[in-house]
Amino acid sequence: MSHSQFGKIVIDGVGLMGGSLGAALIRRGLVDSVWGIGRSLERLEKARTAGVVTHVTTNRSEALSEADLVIVGLPVDRIAEEILSFTPLLSPTTLVTDMGSVKGQIVAQIEKGDPGRKINFIGSHPMCGSERTGFEFADADLYSGATCVVTPTEHCLETNVEKVCQFWMAVGGNILHLNPDEHDRLAARTSHLPRLLASALCLALEQEMDAEKRDQMVSTGFLGPTRTAVGDVSNWVQILSQNSDHVLNALGDMQITLARLHRCLAEDDVANLTEYLNEAQDVRHRLDLLPIARKMRG
Amino acid sequence: MSHSQFGKIVIDGVGLMGGSLGAALIRRGLVDSVWGIGRSLERLEKARTAGVVTHVTTNRSEALSEADLVIVGLPVDRIAEEILSFTPLLSPTTLVTDMGSVKGQIVAQIEKGDPGRKINFIGSHPMCGSERTGFEFADADLYSGATCVVTPTEHCLETNVEKVCQFWMAVGGNILHLNPDEHDRLAARTSHLPRLLASALCLALEQEMDAEKRDQMVSTGFLGPTRTAVGDVSNWVQILSQNSDHVLNALGDMQITLARLHRCLAEDDVANLTEYLNEAQDVRHRLDLLPIARKMRG
Repeated sequence: MSHSQFGKIVIDGVGLMGGSLGAALIRRGLVDSVWGIGRSLERLEKARTAGVVTHVTTNRSEALSEADLVIVGLPVDRIAEEILSFTPLLSPTTLVTDMGSVKGQIVAQIEKGDPGRKINFIGSHPMCGSERTGFEFADADLYSGATCVVTPTEHCLETNVEKVCQFWMAVGGNILHLNPDEHDRLAARTSHLPRLLASALCLALEQEMDAEKRDQMVSTGFLGPTRTAVGDVSNWVQILSQNSDHVLNALGDMQITLARLHRCLAEDDVANLTEYLNEAQDVRHRLDLLPIARKMRG
Repeated sequence: MSHSQFGKIVIDGVGLMGGSLGAALIRRGLVDSVWGIGRSLERLEKARTAGVVTHVTTNRSEALSEADLVIVGLPVDRIAEEILSFTPLLSPTTLVTDMGSVKGQIVAQIEKGDPGRKINFIGSHPMCGSERTGFEFADADLYSGATCVVTPTEHCLETNVEKVCQFWMAVGGNILHLNPDEHDRLAARTSHLPRLLASALCLALEQEMDAEKRDQMVSTGFLGPTRTAVGDVSNWVQILSQNSDHVLNALGDMQITLARLHRCLAEDDVANLTEYLNEAQDVRHRLDLLPIARKMRG
């Protein structure tokens, strides 16, 4: 019998996101146990020693047995397959969610692969993280103030959706209900496009030939916008590829905007340049009022 | 007679940069006095109360008399005119420098306006700062670890250049000698292009129509790269406009890179996309070794 709000939790993939989630659950006393599962027992044991999970195993049926909630924190290209492979191991009341940065393909693949609705899956995406990887960088406060997107479909039971929302709220998240495609459309602009531009800025720097002086001229104004360019490449290629339609739309808008700015500079059109920068400043001032912006300022 | 390394210093324009400089000089015991000059005595008095300057006046001849070094911290479009107006007020030994984000036009305008070389001017640009404005945000540690570009021309005496370098090093800066055009070419890529993209990202967000959900989807991955978009618009329009040739080159390279990324996504060319992101990741990892990057990580 569970004495805590969420009972037995399983985190599949104890990286920065999974480790931070485990740390938050333990720190806040929300669970009876947090099981970390994965492929390397050595890594899992280290995660337990670090205090981000309470139990570890590579035996998935041991972990999944009588779990109340399973959270999959794997790279986006492995999430659907992993969750579908759980089918024979889950009890009928176990809820399953994920933390993938794209939702459309993952949700569709799971629903298509589980026509009998044996898995109580509700897609999630907590809008937080870091360019760093590994539970070594886990932060029990990571989810606090972060928007946690939940993407139920018509196949999800309302009580289950409510439980998943309660879960994210319990670790400090603010819930945003979106359908999977809506999530992907918005994430393209708020997350995937900035990630792509971070890499593009690094490539543009590299086109300057004076390597030594070039690097010495780099300061916070370059390091800040390019921080995410160190993020795991294979994971990001999968994210961008799975969400290519929406990313292409956002990127196309960006290309049009840059062409306008190019024209302003080429024609010394100070009036229009001022108007664009003023509009952008208004947007950014507005965003500074968001809870996550307040948190960043500390 | 001066008892300190730099004697009497005048800061013309006591904003975030000027205020931080004054605070650093006072904190490190490098000066006899730091005079703040400007247009509003009320603001200047507040700066003195805040401890970022030791003396204030709106009477420029009082401040400039027997100054050892004058640092002009005004917006780029006012720097050259201001410095040329000092001519009758400066003693022959006073050195003058600035902190403008562009150097070509400013240095050329001053040298053209002072054919008799009555002003000992050497251009500077400390590669640090903030999107915030005002001495209220002054940080005595701002220059520590920052590259301070010095852009002497053939008209500058070597001993004077050496003194200006000593000055920036004394507040913690690392000196980089560049000619003015070289500075502008490199700054276009490391500073001005990222600033332009920060605004462009905000404008791209605004093209998404679902205003409420859009803003809730914003997280650190968007807030970080767009931070500079709140920076003073009129100052930035002047910077971009004065440096338009180099910014157009950098922006053109960026547009080509984005077109390549667009093609990769449209054709699902995972191999090339991976190659681009890997190359960018290598660049960004390399930049993480810079002193300023270590300082940012804290």
